[in-house]
Amino acid sequence: MASLPQTERILLGPGPSLASPRVMRALAAPVVSHLDPQMVALLDDVRERLVRLFRAPEGSFALAVSGTGTSGMETAVANLVQPGTRAHVVVTGYFGERLAQMLDRYGATVTRTDVEWGRACDPAAVRAALKTQPADVVAMVHAETSTGVLNPVEALAAVAREQGAVTIVDAVTSFGGHPLEVGPWGLGAVYSCSQKCLSAPSGLAPVVFTPEARARAVKSRSFYFDLALLEDYWVRRKYHHTMSSTLVYALHEALAAVDEEGLQARWARHERHHRILLAGLEAMGLSVLPPAGERLWTLNAVTVPAGVDEAAVRKLLLTEFQMEIGSGLGPLAGRIWRVGLMGASSAPHLILLFLGALERALRAQGVKVPPGAGTAAAVAAMAN
Amino acid sequence: MASLPQTERILLGPGPSLASPRVMRALAAPVVSHLDPQMVALLDDVRERLVRLFRAPEGSFALAVSGTGTSGMETAVANLVQPGTRAHVVVTGYFGERLAQMLDRYGATVTRTDVEWGRACDPAAVRAALKTQPADVVAMVHAETSTGVLNPVEALAAVAREQGAVTIVDAVTSFGGHPLEVGPWGLGAVYSCSQKCLSAPSGLAPVVFTPEARARAVKSRSFYFDLALLEDYWVRRKYHHTMSSTLVYALHEALAAVDEEGLQARWARHERHHRILLAGLEAMGLSVLPPAGERLWTLNAVTVPAGVDEAAVRKLLLTEFQMEIGSGLGPLAGRIWRVGLMGASSAPHLILLFLGALERALRAQGVKVPPGAGTAAAVAAMAN
Repeated sequence: MASLPQTERILLGPGPSLASPRVMRALAAPVVSHLDPQMVALLDDVRERLVRLFRAPEGSFALAVSGTGTSGMETAVANLVQPGTRAHVVVTGYFGERLAQMLDRYGATVTRTDVEWGRACDPAAVRAALKTQPADVVAMVHAETSTGVLNPVEALAAVAREQGAVTIVDAVTSFGGHPLEVGPWGLGAVYSCSQKCLSAPSGLAPVVFTPEARARAVKSRSFYFDLALLEDYWVRRKYHHTMSSTLVYALHEALAAVDEEGLQARWARHERHHRILLAGLEAMGLSVLPPAGERLWTLNAVTVPAGVDEAAVRKLLLTEFQMEIGSGLGPLAGRIWRVGLMGASSAPHLILLFLGALERALRAQGVKVPPGAGTAAAVAAMAN
Repeated sequence: MASLPQTERILLGPGPSLASPRVMRALAAPVVSHLDPQMVALLDDVRERLVRLFRAPEGSFALAVSGTGTSGMETAVANLVQPGTRAHVVVTGYFGERLAQMLDRYGATVTRTDVEWGRACDPAAVRAALKTQPADVVAMVHAETSTGVLNPVEALAAVAREQGAVTIVDAVTSFGGHPLEVGPWGLGAVYSCSQKCLSAPSGLAPVVFTPEARARAVKSRSFYFDLALLEDYWVRRKYHHTMSSTLVYALHEALAAVDEEGLQARWARHERHHRILLAGLEAMGLSVLPPAGERLWTLNAVTVPAGVDEAAVRKLLLTEFQMEIGSGLGPLAGRIWRVGLMGASSAPHLILLFLGALERALRAQGVKVPPGAGTAAAVAAMAN
């Protein structure tokens, strides 16, 4: 018979990230029902915090969908797309591809701007595409978790707006870690998850619809993800589904922690730790896949050196150090490791731990790593 | 600012029910990722337990969908219905109505057998309807949470089979509380939730597809609820969504508790406590809506006496006793209270507590309840 985890993992993969002790404690609060006055007060607070942390304009509706980040994606799609909707998708990796598939399933006529995996999208390419193939909706991934690439969402959204399209933006790996300005950037529907930069357990998907997106909402084919029914519950206290109070406690606590740290400080922390990690990796002779300027701070796509068995490295990290990092997806399988520094997992001691463990794992593979060089460079970078 | 619950609720509504201490403790286990070997072992165990507890035949695929009971409903519908599918729905209350709506959204041609709210469906009515309007799918609710009615699923499914249709069965308020025999009754797709008779927090929906239902599966319009993709994850360890380890810990612990108690003993416990509650209610001059033989053990639809302000009673129970019961939905709003005795909330001390608190609330409304009669009758019934 399987049992609960006997060991604590050091979560440095593409997610989930580590949940902080205060978030774990929140899980222990007693269960209440989905319409309990205590629950309703928490939901109001979550909604208000999400609008603010998304930097969404007045009149936006933010909520947490009862599912994972992928349920947030489907909520955005289900409420903005119907058969006949023209949708253009920026595909820079696995999650752009998933967006395209989902838009197609909901009946949209899908056109694409395909970009080499590992590179960000040039807004000019999207402008050119939209001029020949107009779209009602432009969908894009802000932080492409499969490649470690940051797309220029502000510029891409400006192009979409200039062509009259509303945007769907995947902020699963950026919300709470990278600057994301839903209002100033003129975005439409934006979704994320609870388990990456927010550091709550998985199971809820923060989503925001701006007034523009709300005005363009269609009749949803999905009942579970129907925006109007979700708003009935969140705003008008009408039963739609039995939302998990347990997960709401954790998300609420996690959002309070974001507010206490401050968004700007949180972004700066994620950037700083990315730079420290990068200094260490470079000193060890390693590099990341995306070029400078297109790199995520939250998810680092580290190129696997020639001749190294990437799976064996991950296995050693897991068994010897209880440390999880991710593998590559699709065309990047075997070519990269995905190292997440998100939320509570974006911490200086974890970078040192990772660099030391990686040195051990690479040596076990016969790679001649300069001894202690990763740690030394990271420590030096911490002083800057 | 809202804070976590300061008080513990006595949950005797339509759900969530109380989570037992062992389930609450499981929530505290450290987060692991969706493909961690420790997680995968738990998922295998959950899958195996669900097939067994659903009494599903060999070759069935059981899983827990990452969402609430309504997500289980949408998973069943999304994978068995496409435009053109002929679906017949037994509508005996709010959740039958919801099934009809969802089938319609997924493109089915929907026919219905409508039954007065508060009564069970006569299989002969469904047989007659199917003879004039054949169906590919027959959908029904086993335990209608809105009316407290138990539908004769075994007989209804036999009718559906005899007409060549596969069944979708809502077992949200019956699984773990009432006999449910997926294999022997020849059911197709059956779904439930984590937060009622299983007594885990809300957020997961146990679902089973029998070999017959799997053979009839269509291409799902939904990505999140796509059975083939969910099977990729649960069986073939391919990423589909980041399942919440936290909720899996709780569900796993809850299922282990069901196994330890034994299904038959658990069913008997739910029946026994229903009878004790009923004895108490009758001694207080109260009755339940459905006639004998059509009553749920898990959810009791108590008729509000003439002249009583049903909302004031619920409010007094909540503020004075921290006790939650449910109100009526739709045509039953104001006419019934819904008193759930499910999972950990199906316990003798909670019945005494409820009857005493109800006596206090009814007296506050000027109802002349025979003093202590409810408690006396319940205590007497406990001795039988």
